[in-house]
Amino acid sequence: MTQNTKYTAEHSEITRNPFPASKKIYIPGEIHADIRVPMREIELTNGETLTVYDTSGPYTDPNAEIDLTQGLPAIRQAWIAARDDVEEYQGRQLKAVDNGYKRETDVPAELLAAEQGLRRTPLRAKAGKNVTQMHYARQGIITPEMEFIAIRENQRRQDIIDAEREARLKGESFGANLPELITPEFVRDEVAAGRAVIPCNINHPESEPMIIGRNFLVKINANIGNSAITSSIAEEVEKMVWSTRWGGDTVMDLSTGKNIHATRDWIIRNSPVPIGTVPLYQALEKVNGIAEDLTWEVYRDTLIEQAEQGVDYFTIHAGVLLRYVPMTAKRVTGIVSRGGSIMAKWCLAHHKENFLYTHFEDICEIMKAYDVSFSLGDGLRPGSIADANDEAQLSELQTLGELTKIAWKHDVQTIIEGPGHVPMHKIKENMDLQLKLCHEAPFYTLGPLTTDIAPGYDHITSGIGAAMIGWYGTAMLCYVTPKEHLGLPNREDVKEGLMAYKIAAHAADVAKGHPGARHRDDAMSKARFEFRWMDQFNIGLDPERAMAYHDETLPRDSAKVA
Amino acid sequence: MTQNTKYTAEHSEITRNPFPASKKIYIPGEIHADIRVPMREIELTNGETLTVYDTSGPYTDPNAEIDLTQGLPAIRQAWIAARDDVEEYQGRQLKAVDNGYKRETDVPAELLAAEQGLRRTPLRAKAGKNVTQMHYARQGIITPEMEFIAIRENQRRQDIIDAEREARLKGESFGANLPELITPEFVRDEVAAGRAVIPCNINHPESEPMIIGRNFLVKINANIGNSAITSSIAEEVEKMVWSTRWGGDTVMDLSTGKNIHATRDWIIRNSPVPIGTVPLYQALEKVNGIAEDLTWEVYRDTLIEQAEQGVDYFTIHAGVLLRYVPMTAKRVTGIVSRGGSIMAKWCLAHHKENFLYTHFEDICEIMKAYDVSFSLGDGLRPGSIADANDEAQLSELQTLGELTKIAWKHDVQTIIEGPGHVPMHKIKENMDLQLKLCHEAPFYTLGPLTTDIAPGYDHITSGIGAAMIGWYGTAMLCYVTPKEHLGLPNREDVKEGLMAYKIAAHAADVAKGHPGARHRDDAMSKARFEFRWMDQFNIGLDPERAMAYHDETLPRDSAKVA
Repeated sequence: MTQNTKYTAEHSEITRNPFPASKKIYIPGEIHADIRVPMREIELTNGETLTVYDTSGPYTDPNAEIDLTQGLPAIRQAWIAARDDVEEYQGRQLKAVDNGYKRETDVPAELLAAEQGLRRTPLRAKAGKNVTQMHYARQGIITPEMEFIAIRENQRRQDIIDAEREARLKGESFGANLPELITPEFVRDEVAAGRAVIPCNINHPESEPMIIGRNFLVKINANIGNSAITSSIAEEVEKMVWSTRWGGDTVMDLSTGKNIHATRDWIIRNSPVPIGTVPLYQALEKVNGIAEDLTWEVYRDTLIEQAEQGVDYFTIHAGVLLRYVPMTAKRVTGIVSRGGSIMAKWCLAHHKENFLYTHFEDICEIMKAYDVSFSLGDGLRPGSIADANDEAQLSELQTLGELTKIAWKHDVQTIIEGPGHVPMHKIKENMDLQLKLCHEAPFYTLGPLTTDIAPGYDHITSGIGAAMIGWYGTAMLCYVTPKEHLGLPNREDVKEGLMAYKIAAHAADVAKGHPGARHRDDAMSKARFEFRWMDQFNIGLDPERAMAYHDETLPRDSAKVA
Repeated sequence: MTQNTKYTAEHSEITRNPFPASKKIYIPGEIHADIRVPMREIELTNGETLTVYDTSGPYTDPNAEIDLTQGLPAIRQAWIAARDDVEEYQGRQLKAVDNGYKRETDVPAELLAAEQGLRRTPLRAKAGKNVTQMHYARQGIITPEMEFIAIRENQRRQDIIDAEREARLKGESFGANLPELITPEFVRDEVAAGRAVIPCNINHPESEPMIIGRNFLVKINANIGNSAITSSIAEEVEKMVWSTRWGGDTVMDLSTGKNIHATRDWIIRNSPVPIGTVPLYQALEKVNGIAEDLTWEVYRDTLIEQAEQGVDYFTIHAGVLLRYVPMTAKRVTGIVSRGGSIMAKWCLAHHKENFLYTHFEDICEIMKAYDVSFSLGDGLRPGSIADANDEAQLSELQTLGELTKIAWKHDVQTIIEGPGHVPMHKIKENMDLQLKLCHEAPFYTLGPLTTDIAPGYDHITSGIGAAMIGWYGTAMLCYVTPKEHLGLPNREDVKEGLMAYKIAAHAADVAKGHPGARHRDDAMSKARFEFRWMDQFNIGLDPERAMAYHDETLPRDSAKVA
């Protein structure tokens, strides 16, 4: 941040207009009456309506009052309190270094003042309690979060029923179990088995519950980060709002440098979707960027700090083992994961085993006290298709599978991160190995890029791989923007990346045969055949662009060539 | 065209600058010494070079003199003459209606004057001769075209040889036969078997020979068309030049309305790549757009007209049979192919069998007199994923297979057009059925789009399907631009579509295990690992965009996250 930083909320910078012809509806629960599941209802010109999954939170509801300095309403607060297994406590003392400053007196007073309303007294599990959704699920408890998700996933399905078409287009799910109707009990069972996770830190009660698992809709994640020229709270929050507007199911905050603790408060308190982080990045800041100086104590302190703030899932590179590092020596692109290369450096410098691995059960203790989910990082993922599926990558994957079992022993929810760069013919092998080695824990992949030759277009090179691996069974796809390998994405790049990934995720849902997935396609196709132009725009993922592209001067029917 | 039309060549409008750090090289033949196969050699900053396939023709060679009013040098003229099986003849008399005018006096004098240098005396096969490359191939003759292609396909391969990597990344070709080295004899054999076509009308001697077949590099096609506000020859030619610059292996001219005959002369005479058309479109113009008024005589006259001009392949919708039309009644999107709907209308109006089907052998006689290749149109392709792989589509495909056998009886080269809109899990079935029903004739697909919900992004929805079907065996991919379903693409849209399709085609080559395909990826990855930024830009498909996107202010190594 610059000298001109304004630690204020300028609401005008937040995108709040609803999508055209759309209104927010809320579906109540049956088991839990106070549940209100948000969806977007699109009104068509032929009198029909179409309901679509909505990740945008209260921002697109004109009736919602938003005050960025206070955060969103804590919709889960009562649910969490009702379980009677958490306690408020003093929490960790905020330090100057958390925001990247050397001394307490360096921290701008306005920074602290501005986030006054965003700092809440943290919750943690009472002694001896485990507050993870997996723990509840294994006790047979259907939480409000689970019922919320069941309603949300069903999307008020209204399929076109046509026996010939159903038989002809029957999906290929590769073993995924896709029931006609998602019940709260089904959600519970999936979470209990570890096949799905509900990232929902008890300190992020503002989030609208969502699920990541192979037997649910494929999800997408957007990465955001602070920039050097940020000027206000609103600008940081807007990045998150913008990402969820275009379909981001979760957001990873990869901010570095100054004021990141405060930025994280702003983002989490105002976020309707789960927030993920890589705590290693902040831990490294605390030791001035010197990997060798990292310690378990600094790292542990960072986990607590972020868990108290409400981070929903942590990327943890615990599978980068000392003995795997030499396996990368002959690679074309070495180690490209930032977390992976930090830990490899640490391991080599100390000639010791990765402390994230040796302290893994200590980490589990923290995770289960807040219900933070593991996202086990693939620090040795390939950075080029030349290095795909090599010994280093697959050895790490096996270790992640072993760690999954340990996490599950603690009832800690776990997803597994995956590559990266993989040619098309090796994508299925990745998926199959992951399912086998990681015991069906959800897979969360970055792309993969299917070729390396198109910098500037990596949302497409990777969108191809993402669609395929989503079809094969990946539960969440981490987006890639056109700026990948080149620079930091701007607002338009973020949107381009999200659109490519919404397409990939939806194409995967359709191919798997996810019930109801084809409904939106059919609504579009009917509108197309009947020349209902406004409906075509409004049903689409990006009504604004579709409308702008539409050219009234089209000669005859030449627009209908595909 | 408007009143302001200038029938002149304004060279300044033609994009001619070479790609950065690139020079055009020409590789000589061995069997045929006068062959000069163009390639692009990229000079890297580490002293190495990288040779890539080059579709851009003489336009990117600073030493080439271009005169749009005279056309490109006729590089194949001597080869054609040497076979001593063609004759010059008077040719068909140009009519006013060919350019969309009612009376001869309506045709602008400047229009005819401007294309004076572009009208050549046509060639045709001597009586009793067959001048198709398939005919020569079946006689055991290796033509200069075949040797040219063998050299071109090999791309001066310089693979990274690493046994571990080769074994690990071994391609999955699904039965495609991909030899380490493409020999002229291999090309001949593939053409003789009908598994590949070389679109090269004897009246288009300016074209640089290329091949379309499953056992060669995957190719892409760009569609162009005249616009209502065209102002000069150069503008029409530039569309073709622009398309080939960004990798278009062939170009389809889908122009309609006024001056299309003249426009086609300009495009073909100046085109280094094969040109395809849908003759039905012009035939329909000649009967004032009334499908019912179409006759075999009008259509036949149009085939001769375009064959004499040098069109290399014709899309012919001969598989839309009368009895198939009712099969589309229950579809969500009916018949969306323009050619398909014209012929369906004709069939229903007359209650007669499609005249393209009943006159198919007559058409073969024309094709073999000029070596025009069939592109058997899929007039009943699905217009939505809801209609994918239905009875209408698959019935037509079977008929196209029968027609292929008839074409081959005449030694006429044939490719088969395919869909369209197909969800991912049904793409392979399309490919497998096509191979089986059409006896391994090359498949040429439009996308397919894998979902219908993203108008404005159909280069991506279809790029996913294109990459997959290319991997499974499609020989050429017809591009889709972001404007699909919305309007006419502009220059940037054309480039976006081509980039998405170059990515798809290349990803397919890599997955199939095409020898040498991974070499460009490896060169990029090495440059990336060594932070050779200029090389990364120059090796990429779009150096300009990569450079523009590159941000010098990147914080540390955060750009290397994938």
